[in-house]
Amino acid sequence: MDYRFAARMRNAPESFLKQLFAVSSDPSIISFAGGLPDSKLIDVGGIKDSAAFILEEEGREALQYTTTEGYLPLREFIAERYRKRLGIPASSENIRIVNGSQQCLDIIGKIFIEKNDPIGIERPGYLGAIEAFSLYEPLIRSVDMNDSGPDTESFAKLVSEERIKFFYGIPNFQNPTGRSYSTDTRRKIGEIIGGTDSLFYEDDAFGELAFDRKPRVPVNKFAPGNVIIGGSFSKTVAPGMRIGWIMAPPEIIPMFDTAKQAADLHSNFLCQKIMNHYLRTSDYDGHLKRVVSVYGRNCRLMQDLLDDMAKTGITHTSPEGGMFMTAKLPGGISSMKLFEDGIRKGVAILPGTPFYAGPGGDDMIRLNFSNTGEENIKDGMARLSGVLSDLPQV
Amino acid sequence: MDYRFAARMRNAPESFLKQLFAVSSDPSIISFAGGLPDSKLIDVGGIKDSAAFILEEEGREALQYTTTEGYLPLREFIAERYRKRLGIPASSENIRIVNGSQQCLDIIGKIFIEKNDPIGIERPGYLGAIEAFSLYEPLIRSVDMNDSGPDTESFAKLVSEERIKFFYGIPNFQNPTGRSYSTDTRRKIGEIIGGTDSLFYEDDAFGELAFDRKPRVPVNKFAPGNVIIGGSFSKTVAPGMRIGWIMAPPEIIPMFDTAKQAADLHSNFLCQKIMNHYLRTSDYDGHLKRVVSVYGRNCRLMQDLLDDMAKTGITHTSPEGGMFMTAKLPGGISSMKLFEDGIRKGVAILPGTPFYAGPGGDDMIRLNFSNTGEENIKDGMARLSGVLSDLPQV
Repeated sequence: MDYRFAARMRNAPESFLKQLFAVSSDPSIISFAGGLPDSKLIDVGGIKDSAAFILEEEGREALQYTTTEGYLPLREFIAERYRKRLGIPASSENIRIVNGSQQCLDIIGKIFIEKNDPIGIERPGYLGAIEAFSLYEPLIRSVDMNDSGPDTESFAKLVSEERIKFFYGIPNFQNPTGRSYSTDTRRKIGEIIGGTDSLFYEDDAFGELAFDRKPRVPVNKFAPGNVIIGGSFSKTVAPGMRIGWIMAPPEIIPMFDTAKQAADLHSNFLCQKIMNHYLRTSDYDGHLKRVVSVYGRNCRLMQDLLDDMAKTGITHTSPEGGMFMTAKLPGGISSMKLFEDGIRKGVAILPGTPFYAGPGGDDMIRLNFSNTGEENIKDGMARLSGVLSDLPQV
Repeated sequence: MDYRFAARMRNAPESFLKQLFAVSSDPSIISFAGGLPDSKLIDVGGIKDSAAFILEEEGREALQYTTTEGYLPLREFIAERYRKRLGIPASSENIRIVNGSQQCLDIIGKIFIEKNDPIGIERPGYLGAIEAFSLYEPLIRSVDMNDSGPDTESFAKLVSEERIKFFYGIPNFQNPTGRSYSTDTRRKIGEIIGGTDSLFYEDDAFGELAFDRKPRVPVNKFAPGNVIIGGSFSKTVAPGMRIGWIMAPPEIIPMFDTAKQAADLHSNFLCQKIMNHYLRTSDYDGHLKRVVSVYGRNCRLMQDLLDDMAKTGITHTSPEGGMFMTAKLPGGISSMKLFEDGIRKGVAILPGTPFYAGPGGDDMIRLNFSNTGEENIKDGMARLSGVLSDLPQV
């Protein structure tokens, strides 16, 4: 039969994520293409103890329906961490729990975007955000990223001339580039957007993964009424529990609740309770310290090995945290071609194109350094070096 | 500041669910208003054992990211149950896992509804579906329900004249009425919709809760290419784990995956694994038998007590399964007024109005019989009888 799908579905960019999962399950391929935290660093024992405690002591409640807002003690933990770590005067009333922070993107898209509304995003920008927002049929305006963040002049124009509904950005250790906004750029963005009726969606999935464990000042600090923050335990505790959150101005919360309730009533209550218990009984900061010491070491190793390839003309970003960096390819080499040749030689990289809402990105690749040990980084980068050397430059 | 929400958010019907949760947390109120399964019947011990096993044996995998489609062994379990229990030739490829079956409504709305597309729904119909679909701005056409299901002539007109994108219905033990479609109505609906380019969304959240444990023939049987089935473990195992599923024709699955991935990447992997292990190691059918024996007893008790109030003029439906029935109020008594007066006298019912996409329903109430023990049903119905008697009839 002829299934009459909605026109918005034609807007969905071709997704790489599914192909990535396929690649990541082939053990002969060393993959820098995925976006997974290191499984070996997940505190399975601690989570298991918390699960046993919750199911023993509060099982009947944890397995029942609950409220759309999310588990109050967990929201209080998150709010307190914002207050203590970043000096943001958050309360549980600003926090809502979602099924991983990807769900925030969908809900914010739903409550703000009308067809042909202009929104802004970094170029390159997070492909999952492009996918989520695209289904609400916005006009996506991209702003070039440089080493200190998005170009603030272009950003100011988007706000004043296009009156974007919101701008989506990742100020800390961006996906894909690993770059961070400078403090000056954060302040400027806050000053530009403050007092307007545009919003800044500050995705902070990676903020806790600073290699030096020092918090960066959030854009929120400079324009609290205009900034929504998205957060996640996927990179810090465990992605399989699907627990993320939104921190938003109070006027946005009721709309968020309406859309979240319509979307799935509420997030997994059992895992919310397990997560809350785990965070409050484990040494969370000690755990994060262990995680970033590994990621930082991996990142420096990968940078060194890319530097060793400098003669090919490849260059790279220099992240201070997170899980990703990008590399710019030597003249004329296509990232799609590198992807295909790489797979044949047993190394997977992620082409840059899906990180561009429009054309662009074929001269760039994303490299993940969180989910591959040092030996594999060495072997994988050697394979990549071989593939690169074999490719003719223009 | 002026937050520029999307126009679709004005379409959201005022939600009762939040108020309901508030009411259900006041211990002095006996609530027939909610939609919760009986917490005492959740097999906490069995789920705890499965959680311990999964976290011990497969914890590192269960806590990592996974695929959008959902856990294959769980999808295989569901498909096999369709084959064996209902004779539907399902395979894991037709099944996708979601965060409770409410998420299917959101995703099906997203992939099919364009603004002002006509869709059909039962009158009265499930309020959560009205909420989810409304955000995609359809024209909602309602078809009156009678004791054998939706009026098939009106249904046929919706398909042939309005060419609805889909019709949403609950053939088994409907929410709110508890009614079921007759076999004849199921066949007619299948015959009407088969071969057209309209779909029937067969929500089967309650099919396993037949008091006699006998499966009813699904509408899907009569028009497999035109029927999507939504399913859920929330009413049978545990709502707090948020595990539901869709069974759909193969042409719909890729669109579903695209929208699900954009919405939240994937459902909670830990709970998918726990659920799969629980279903395969516990006596699931024995558990369901225990559940329906309690719900059936509660239902008959509630019906008897409503019959005792017959002198007030109240009448009720006669469910053969599920968790709900509806009662029609005596002439001129408003369900909103009954709700308000009931709260003051310590009994909560759910007014009928939110189950109507348009006007209507104020002469009807929904009564839940799954989450209240026999003593509370007796006390609560006595309170309700008192409130009813005090209200002046027109």
